[in-house]
Amino acid sequence: MTDFFAGISPVTYSPDVPADQLAFRHYNPDEMVAGKRMEDHLRFAVAWWHSFAWPGGDPFGGQTFERPWFGDTMDLARLKADVAFEMFEILGQPYFCWHDADIRPEGATFAESKRNFEEIIDYIGDKMKAGGTKLLWGTANLFSHRRFMAGAATNPDPEVFAWSAATVKNCLDATHKLGGENYVLWGGREGYETLLNTDLKRERAQAGRFLQMVVDYKHKIGFDGAILIEPKPQEPTKHQYDYDVATVYGFLKEFGLEDEVQMNIEQGHAILAGHSFEHELATAAALGIFGSIDMNRNDYQSGWDTDQFPNNVPEVALAYYEVLKAGGFTTGGTNFDAKLRRQSLDPKDLIAAHVGAMDICARGLKAAAAMLEDGGLEAARAARYAGWEAEQSRSWLTSASLDQIEAQVAGGGIDPQPRSGQQEILENYVSRFV
Amino acid sequence: MTDFFAGISPVTYSPDVPADQLAFRHYNPDEMVAGKRMEDHLRFAVAWWHSFAWPGGDPFGGQTFERPWFGDTMDLARLKADVAFEMFEILGQPYFCWHDADIRPEGATFAESKRNFEEIIDYIGDKMKAGGTKLLWGTANLFSHRRFMAGAATNPDPEVFAWSAATVKNCLDATHKLGGENYVLWGGREGYETLLNTDLKRERAQAGRFLQMVVDYKHKIGFDGAILIEPKPQEPTKHQYDYDVATVYGFLKEFGLEDEVQMNIEQGHAILAGHSFEHELATAAALGIFGSIDMNRNDYQSGWDTDQFPNNVPEVALAYYEVLKAGGFTTGGTNFDAKLRRQSLDPKDLIAAHVGAMDICARGLKAAAAMLEDGGLEAARAARYAGWEAEQSRSWLTSASLDQIEAQVAGGGIDPQPRSGQQEILENYVSRFV
Amino acid sequence: MTDFFAGISPVTYSPDVPADQLAFRHYNPDEMVAGKRMEDHLRFAVAWWHSFAWPGGDPFGGQTFERPWFGDTMDLARLKADVAFEMFEILGQPYFCWHDADIRPEGATFAESKRNFEEIIDYIGDKMKAGGTKLLWGTANLFSHRRFMAGAATNPDPEVFAWSAATVKNCLDATHKLGGENYVLWGGREGYETLLNTDLKRERAQAGRFLQMVVDYKHKIGFDGAILIEPKPQEPTKHQYDYDVATVYGFLKEFGLEDEVQMNIEQGHAILAGHSFEHELATAAALGIFGSIDMNRNDYQSGWDTDQFPNNVPEVALAYYEVLKAGGFTTGGTNFDAKLRRQSLDPKDLIAAHVGAMDICARGLKAAAAMLEDGGLEAARAARYAGWEAEQSRSWLTSASLDQIEAQVAGGGIDPQPRSGQQEILENYVSRFV
Amino acid sequence: MTDFFAGISPVTYSPDVPADQLAFRHYNPDEMVAGKRMEDHLRFAVAWWHSFAWPGGDPFGGQTFERPWFGDTMDLARLKADVAFEMFEILGQPYFCWHDADIRPEGATFAESKRNFEEIIDYIGDKMKAGGTKLLWGTANLFSHRRFMAGAATNPDPEVFAWSAATVKNCLDATHKLGGENYVLWGGREGYETLLNTDLKRERAQAGRFLQMVVDYKHKIGFDGAILIEPKPQEPTKHQYDYDVATVYGFLKEFGLEDEVQMNIEQGHAILAGHSFEHELATAAALGIFGSIDMNRNDYQSGWDTDQFPNNVPEVALAYYEVLKAGGFTTGGTNFDAKLRRQSLDPKDLIAAHVGAMDICARGLKAAAAMLEDGGLEAARAARYAGWEAEQSRSWLTSASLDQIEAQVAGGGIDPQPRSGQQEILENYVSRFV
Repeated sequence: MTDFFAGISPVTYSPDVPADQLAFRHYNPDEMVAGKRMEDHLRFAVAWWHSFAWPGGDPFGGQTFERPWFGDTMDLARLKADVAFEMFEILGQPYFCWHDADIRPEGATFAESKRNFEEIIDYIGDKMKAGGTKLLWGTANLFSHRRFMAGAATNPDPEVFAWSAATVKNCLDATHKLGGENYVLWGGREGYETLLNTDLKRERAQAGRFLQMVVDYKHKIGFDGAILIEPKPQEPTKHQYDYDVATVYGFLKEFGLEDEVQMNIEQGHAILAGHSFEHELATAAALGIFGSIDMNRNDYQSGWDTDQFPNNVPEVALAYYEVLKAGGFTTGGTNFDAKLRRQSLDPKDLIAAHVGAMDICARGLKAAAAMLEDGGLEAARAARYAGWEAEQSRSWLTSASLDQIEAQVAGGGIDPQPRSGQQEILENYVSRFV
Repeated sequence: MTDFFAGISPVTYSPDVPADQLAFRHYNPDEMVAGKRMEDHLRFAVAWWHSFAWPGGDPFGGQTFERPWFGDTMDLARLKADVAFEMFEILGQPYFCWHDADIRPEGATFAESKRNFEEIIDYIGDKMKAGGTKLLWGTANLFSHRRFMAGAATNPDPEVFAWSAATVKNCLDATHKLGGENYVLWGGREGYETLLNTDLKRERAQAGRFLQMVVDYKHKIGFDGAILIEPKPQEPTKHQYDYDVATVYGFLKEFGLEDEVQMNIEQGHAILAGHSFEHELATAAALGIFGSIDMNRNDYQSGWDTDQFPNNVPEVALAYYEVLKAGGFTTGGTNFDAKLRRQSLDPKDLIAAHVGAMDICARGLKAAAAMLEDGGLEAARAARYAGWEAEQSRSWLTSASLDQIEAQVAGGGIDPQPRSGQQEILENYVSRFV
Repeated sequence: MTDFFAGISPVTYSPDVPADQLAFRHYNPDEMVAGKRMEDHLRFAVAWWHSFAWPGGDPFGGQTFERPWFGDTMDLARLKADVAFEMFEILGQPYFCWHDADIRPEGATFAESKRNFEEIIDYIGDKMKAGGTKLLWGTANLFSHRRFMAGAATNPDPEVFAWSAATVKNCLDATHKLGGENYVLWGGREGYETLLNTDLKRERAQAGRFLQMVVDYKHKIGFDGAILIEPKPQEPTKHQYDYDVATVYGFLKEFGLEDEVQMNIEQGHAILAGHSFEHELATAAALGIFGSIDMNRNDYQSGWDTDQFPNNVPEVALAYYEVLKAGGFTTGGTNFDAKLRRQSLDPKDLIAAHVGAMDICARGLKAAAAMLEDGGLEAARAARYAGWEAEQSRSWLTSASLDQIEAQVAGGGIDPQPRSGQQEILENYVSRFV
Repeated sequence: MTDFFAGISPVTYSPDVPADQLAFRHYNPDEMVAGKRMEDHLRFAVAWWHSFAWPGGDPFGGQTFERPWFGDTMDLARLKADVAFEMFEILGQPYFCWHDADIRPEGATFAESKRNFEEIIDYIGDKMKAGGTKLLWGTANLFSHRRFMAGAATNPDPEVFAWSAATVKNCLDATHKLGGENYVLWGGREGYETLLNTDLKRERAQAGRFLQMVVDYKHKIGFDGAILIEPKPQEPTKHQYDYDVATVYGFLKEFGLEDEVQMNIEQGHAILAGHSFEHELATAAALGIFGSIDMNRNDYQSGWDTDQFPNNVPEVALAYYEVLKAGGFTTGGTNFDAKLRRQSLDPKDLIAAHVGAMDICARGLKAAAAMLEDGGLEAARAARYAGWEAEQSRSWLTSASLDQIEAQVAGGGIDPQPRSGQQEILENYVSRFV
């Protein structure tokens, strides 16, 4: 046992303890919601990078956090893992996620980085056997090191493409070895700073080829988790190719990969793309590519990715409503891609942030399940489209041609009359559940 | 002759007249640029709606313009057409564009609207024969009337779907009759105000079916112009399905229409979607769906569509650079989807706005052509990707697998070194041309 | 009685009626909150313009609402007033607000508009005597008519300045006559479309002079309500001078009016200026110029003023927390500057929207009061600044000079150590109340 | 001589050299523009932080630049200064600017940092004597070190207030010693991350007190340069108190400092506050607080401060137009607060970026001067407000009361008629100069 969380006991569902004590007041893992344990619905995961690797810097200031494991040795990497698993135990967290760069020190060569990585993967694997926490997903950090400054798969330099492919291969192997349920690709540098030096078509082809190789390799090694792409419109680059769900869908269709790859959707990335979180979720569900979520909250008024912990139940409820409508998570889950504010220095802040967020999610989930069970929204929606059940209407969607329909309309008898969309009434309905 | 433009003579290329006189100082229709007359490159069009139908209102104020043709009679519609053609003559404008609702009064019934429309189409057709102005594209206004408040093709009410289909049929017929070179679909109400009452998947299927019918009908009547979709992310609705070029591409791929439909790309809509104009143009070119442009300028700092006339040569030059790289316009052209500020009340404002915009486009085109001819940008781009010409690199894009590449990298010898992206040097390069 | 709200009974506090019935489930006017009746805290007002005058148009579409009172006659103006007071009775609404243009038809001359206005003011005055609804504030519409297209007080044309002054004089008289508790100035056209034709300094001087005259006249007639300015950053213009609270404060200080004028703060306008609602409220309170609020909700992702009814308790609670900390409303209140979505056509939508919003506000108020009573936030805040109570610290804020402080620091012994800002813990705290 | 810029010769005005050679093609220091040498108009400065201290990191990636002077020793600080002055010589740059943290290594204590600072100030002073480059302004970095994470002057911890005061004292001394012409305060951490833990009123008072001490000390030491505040709305914090020019004006008025402090206005900060650069310049001029500019360019579509080198002449011309209208710079100048893109690794990129920017500014200045000399804009502006010269109009701005004006208007004879604002015509006018 390290002493990082000294004095902090495992957090339990204890809705009635005093306000200044750490406790789940809403998240009750074993409580049944819509026929399933709450824990099995939410499938919470802790993100290694934000919780253990991020030093608290921002573009105008350096490190604020002082963690005993900061540094670049294998010993410190093991200490970091020790603390991580202590936090999982405190939170009763069923899952975690990592980038390779979060968990191992960079070596002087690819081979050395690989050895470091494999060693720490084994170390983590042993800890997983001891505790109950599982791997929701692994991923490769192909954006922080300066070699990736102009992209990974889409780099003008083929050596970076190769380096990236090799890295993903090892991360996919490690994810498979640890029993990970998904593998994620976030293309933070797959984009451009300026069109003036960029060949869009060529970079798109590189990305398509890269993704095809990943899918092929997944099948080759028998990894039966999902391959997930995480869209983001911009930041760090001026433009990222995986802009949003609809954009990635077009990319998957072009390369014939729409049945092989699903979406990992982040609230903050949705916001940056000009969408609501629920829009991105509903779009992915409509297109058959919904996979998992990165739960966080973006400041609507900051143009960058603020990655805050969620705190707004009305919004979170609408997100889980879409998740439940899509059938809930299968391999996916709720990864907290959220970081402490850089002034939140204390170990207690780290625990409290997760506890608060888990409670917010639990409240959102319960509200969503209650709305679905009540059925009011779905009944209103069905009524709004009921006209399409008539035979003539159905024919317009199947066999009619433009001129046949025109003849019907020009002949008279069709004169559509607006009906209320009832937005405020539906919003009031939702408000009763949140 | 009406007296609306009394005292305003046809505008000619006269670069040296005094500053207070209307003249083209850069647009010289017959001047050869990159092997083609400037007019044949730019293919300017006037938009009937902004120039002749818009009353100057905004969300906080009513009509400011007082045009003698405002009103809902056929006589006024003819007067409007008379003035329009007088403006085309003053500007030497080769093309124009319309929505049905711009040119004919709405009738009490569909049939009456159709009669009004056909009559005015004939009237316009006669004027076209007399003058040299041609139809760049026609389109149907499926967003202003209250019947479309919840969408056209994607309306929950099938009768609106039918009304919309019938309307497009007639507009396509009219476009064909007038020798129009394209037909445009802008889905201003194809979207939603709230997800709470919306079935995304169903509405998407309606839109796909609708577009298929349009394409089928185009072939049936032998219209050999292009079918163009004009993307816009939002406004008037909270979310529009044709969000941007990449989104529409995914939609076309889903319904197998990517070879049948191209893009009409508007500067202001690109901006609202978080993209530069040149990004949307380059993306459409890379995806093989570039068609035409709506030239205007959006205030980057106003969150709505300001539809101003362009006035920034450095930006316009980058747009035409992408147009020229894509091979230039075939059926497409430069439609000024731009309106006067609502305080610009005078007939002279309307002429001056177009003259200024045409000059800006001429300067942009010439700069773009000069850059392409000089070849500096393309040479720098080619050099940046030159590493991909090596045999090993090529194999990574064709036959290699993830584990084969990993073996190469782990074996050593591949250690990518960052090279300058030279953004400022390339920007300086562009600045020398604009 | 008109039949507009036929079948809709007065809405009462009935938390347990079935979900499809109109009822207040949280707003209970007589319930005591922090020592005051809930109604006396919230001081709700209905806005005449959105509820009765707005036709449902947007920049891309015309009128969707069909109200029997739409039109420009005095009879219709009276019918509109009849329906308004019926709605006030249904809602048990204590207050309402108007622009002159909302309640009277525009006349052919100023004098005729004035006669229409005075007549309808008397009509409304009689209705007020019959019912219990009071006037929260009146205001002049100096932005819709084309004469105001270039501003009212800041117009380049002095005649518009005069027309505006005359209009405000009459509106202030009418507000006084009806016992209004405030008079509001919203400068929707006090700004510019382009700096190229604008003299900022001159227009600022005009605005200062205008406001001084309004204040003088208020005192002259003995109106003891508050004069309120409502900030908004842009829309309809490119830039509005009353950008936000801090900007208006500078303006008031320049003209020596900071003790005469307070702020009417709108959620949507705060958002458009890049601020949270609570920021604007807290800023006004800190500067001593807090007055009243326009409660609504803006879509964070639409760049224009969406004026939706509020539906997010966590956000509304933070707003009322600032209101309560500022001592609550005196002359001010909660005006719903919110409009139905243009698809919400039914009379029931209008009632339901207000009912839902009133419930949201009631929940927000109760949560705010509970947080204040609990005192957790204020205790944490006080602890954070506790260091300033030491004698040396106090001296730095009063008597010390830069070089004296430098000597102390350079001498050693002062080495500030960061302490956690506890943002997540405080957010969790708030979440327990909302 | 270091070898950092090996192979790069001093850049001269040589408009006709081949495109791939470094040369000023527009910036000709000795050329007379509006009666003054171009160099004396523009007063260019290089920013030490971006050019020599910034490592190329962003929120998702670390250092990309590898400069031989990176590190924390005095020897490296001297090497950095050597290279800086070599760059000044290459560019013929008349001015430079620094933060204390840019030029000296942080010591273990305040006293050690001070010693380091004083030593390097002497070193720089010697170099200044040898070359002709002068100090435009100095400033203190009160935002990067973790001690400032919750603010400097506005920190809840009084020890940080003291540390900050002591630091500014030393920086002001050093600026004075080097003959600096201004001293700048940028409050990058003077703001908040969350209102929940913030006392706005108290922090505002701290800031006012701090600024008063700075002004007092300036007078005490006889520094006759200007004290400049640099507004920015947000980033790094959620909200910064020096939001924009108008906000700072209100702050200065509150503390009676409006005659003591002027504005240093940055293009990118203006954009982030929702304003155009020229708006902020014109506002400062109208309020009598214009001082200096930070020239750069912000990506309108990235919500953070991109600090790019300017490349758009039409925009830059409008900025210099406001500068010239305000009388040009006195103590102020054109500081390039601009950094290379992080992929621009080469020494040549650094030189080329400045050369390109200086040319853009020269073009902008010349266009602005030509417009002012031509007088077309000012004539149009004067004509627009000409109505205010009539006696009656003037009385409305001086002696009339609201009821007197109302009597005039109600009496008839005043019926304002809209006149065209001519925005497009004025934009065309500007386009002829850029």
